[in-house]
Amino acid sequence: MKIDSIDFFYLSMPEVLDIGDGSQDALLVRITAGNHVGWGECEASPLVSIASLVCPMSHSACKPVQASVLGQTIEGAADIRRIGNLVRANSLDLLQADHTLSGIDIALWDLLGQRFGEPVWKLLGYQKSYAKTPYASVLFGDTPEATLRKAKKIQSQGFRAAKFGWGPFGLGSVAQDESQLHAAREGLGSDGILLVDAGTVWNTDIDAARARLRTLKEVRAKWLEEPFVSGALGEYHALSQDSGTVGMAGGEGCHNFHMARHMIDHAGLKFVQIDAGRIGGITIAKDVADEAVAKGVTYVNHTFTSNLALSASIQPFAGLESHVICEFPTELKSLAVEMTKNHITPDRNGEVYAPDVPGLGIEPDLVGIRPYLVDAEIRVGSKVLYRTPSL
Amino acid sequence: MKIDSIDFFYLSMPEVLDIGDGSQDALLVRITAGNHVGWGECEASPLVSIASLVCPMSHSACKPVQASVLGQTIEGAADIRRIGNLVRANSLDLLQADHTLSGIDIALWDLLGQRFGEPVWKLLGYQKSYAKTPYASVLFGDTPEATLRKAKKIQSQGFRAAKFGWGPFGLGSVAQDESQLHAAREGLGSDGILLVDAGTVWNTDIDAARARLRTLKEVRAKWLEEPFVSGALGEYHALSQDSGTVGMAGGEGCHNFHMARHMIDHAGLKFVQIDAGRIGGITIAKDVADEAVAKGVTYVNHTFTSNLALSASIQPFAGLESHVICEFPTELKSLAVEMTKNHITPDRNGEVYAPDVPGLGIEPDLVGIRPYLVDAEIRVGSKVLYRTPSL
Repeated sequence: MKIDSIDFFYLSMPEVLDIGDGSQDALLVRITAGNHVGWGECEASPLVSIASLVCPMSHSACKPVQASVLGQTIEGAADIRRIGNLVRANSLDLLQADHTLSGIDIALWDLLGQRFGEPVWKLLGYQKSYAKTPYASVLFGDTPEATLRKAKKIQSQGFRAAKFGWGPFGLGSVAQDESQLHAAREGLGSDGILLVDAGTVWNTDIDAARARLRTLKEVRAKWLEEPFVSGALGEYHALSQDSGTVGMAGGEGCHNFHMARHMIDHAGLKFVQIDAGRIGGITIAKDVADEAVAKGVTYVNHTFTSNLALSASIQPFAGLESHVICEFPTELKSLAVEMTKNHITPDRNGEVYAPDVPGLGIEPDLVGIRPYLVDAEIRVGSKVLYRTPSL
Repeated sequence: MKIDSIDFFYLSMPEVLDIGDGSQDALLVRITAGNHVGWGECEASPLVSIASLVCPMSHSACKPVQASVLGQTIEGAADIRRIGNLVRANSLDLLQADHTLSGIDIALWDLLGQRFGEPVWKLLGYQKSYAKTPYASVLFGDTPEATLRKAKKIQSQGFRAAKFGWGPFGLGSVAQDESQLHAAREGLGSDGILLVDAGTVWNTDIDAARARLRTLKEVRAKWLEEPFVSGALGEYHALSQDSGTVGMAGGEGCHNFHMARHMIDHAGLKFVQIDAGRIGGITIAKDVADEAVAKGVTYVNHTFTSNLALSASIQPFAGLESHVICEFPTELKSLAVEMTKNHITPDRNGEVYAPDVPGLGIEPDLVGIRPYLVDAEIRVGSKVLYRTPSL
């Protein structure tokens, strides 16, 4: 069968706030081939990704993403990889293409799963989907007191792990961050797994990061995520030499396999965090998971929008029994909750699993998302290249 | 003074062909501050870069590029770096942002040059602009005979160096490539500097690249450019171990300083090729030039559109006396020729210089580009976010 259509749906909350909450908008991808439909999601700027799907060709290595996807044969996993390679070659000079391809790749895996009646993780070669320990992923409160309240709430909800990030962290004094860290530990209790996300706030400033290490060790943070931007391999590595039991975590900014491999090889990471909605889809995320296993680094999913994206993010390491920590956003805006009919929820043991049903196992709610659908249009000359498709 | 306006102009040939010729369209950038105007160019997909300039915010680290530029103070070079850092932080998750920032950064340098009455290379700290040896940058012919004719023409035009790339090279048999390489050498004559650009055609296939090394050595190619994609550091390094006098060249795909530094540190490069219109502008390109000098690697400009982009590409290494090879596109489409009033041309010795006049020294031809101006519009909800501005 051939790929008949690619539809991009730009969804947004009525108001988008200037906060580190990525669930405020979404780019939902629908692909049809024969009688099958697959759904995916790019964790990317919706409008810019739409433009990269449909833009006019600039030259042979700067084509719109759809030029390498529409009309392509899709019979099995090898076709998904072939299509991804086509996009990377034909859109080599189109920077946004990796983010755009990601949602397409995810939708193609979902579509193949529907076709073969198998969950995506089985199509990836895994025999079993193992339990993951979800960590509640939240922003630091504006004050240590607010962080304490958040941590207590998470603990009372039964989460065994929590990640605090962004908000005021790293922007003020070392003492302020220390108060935040102690508040998080206090609220979680002594047994909780505490993870800390600096959100690249120190860019490449090793000293700023190092100044927080003492307290990070005191509060037994399991990892320090993104002290620096993704490419700052030398800075990551230098910090990892002093971080002791606090593992370096990073990689969400990687938009291809090579970047992730460099981080694994050169950044001193204990945890490589991959967003299937950015790195080129489930295909490349699985390649990174294989590389992580080979190099003794723990793979962790990165995700911050709907449960469709969450399911996609878990598939690449669903079958890795010893890679258990799993990002699980718990402060989603209504858009990200209402855009799917079903959800991934922790079981009685507080564990989550990649769904054991065909495809990604998450069904978009076409009625639920309607209020969030953004009407958009892109025109070049007399041609309308994009207009919000009907659901 | 403050940045009052940013205008993006999408220019295109009436017909864009599916060939490796990047001069078929262009994204011209105009910035005004106080009474001053600066011009720049992104070497990027025009429509996608426009979308990334004006897109709605997705969250605090995925803002439109203009949010970090409009209204900013611009008094000196430190402000350009500050603005670039703002864009990288506020648009961290907006993949296209680096390409978009590049044209803005270039325009800001041009603007500052106008204001202070100094060429950009002086503002960058160089005392003198040294002669560069331009290489005619052309595509391989469809046949060895066509390549021979191109090489002879280049030689007769007085160029001492030529680069052949793309076209059929690397796509067919080793024997076909060998014929192409011998034709290029024969046409250039024994003294000509021959450069070869594989245009990432082998992706990460070391064996395919290695199979061409013998002939590349025979025809005394000074460099083999982009045998692999930019991130394939290990593959570059492995090939460099066997390439002898044929230096590895690459880096045009780098869109930030870190990527270029990794190539310098880990890819076994002799030549790092940086496109100021992609890497984040002249600011970051100059950082890479400094890094190249420190690490004993030769800096080379990468450029393929107008003489405005060419001037921008030379500024970062204008003052490096021993880094002499300079990309100089010679098969430009009429758009790229007619979009500027003046041009950089080789002198009687066949050398080119960064212009010794204020700014970039290249004036856009607002009448000349009018026929190429693309009428475009982007609408989200009831808001028109972009409409082609008036020249």
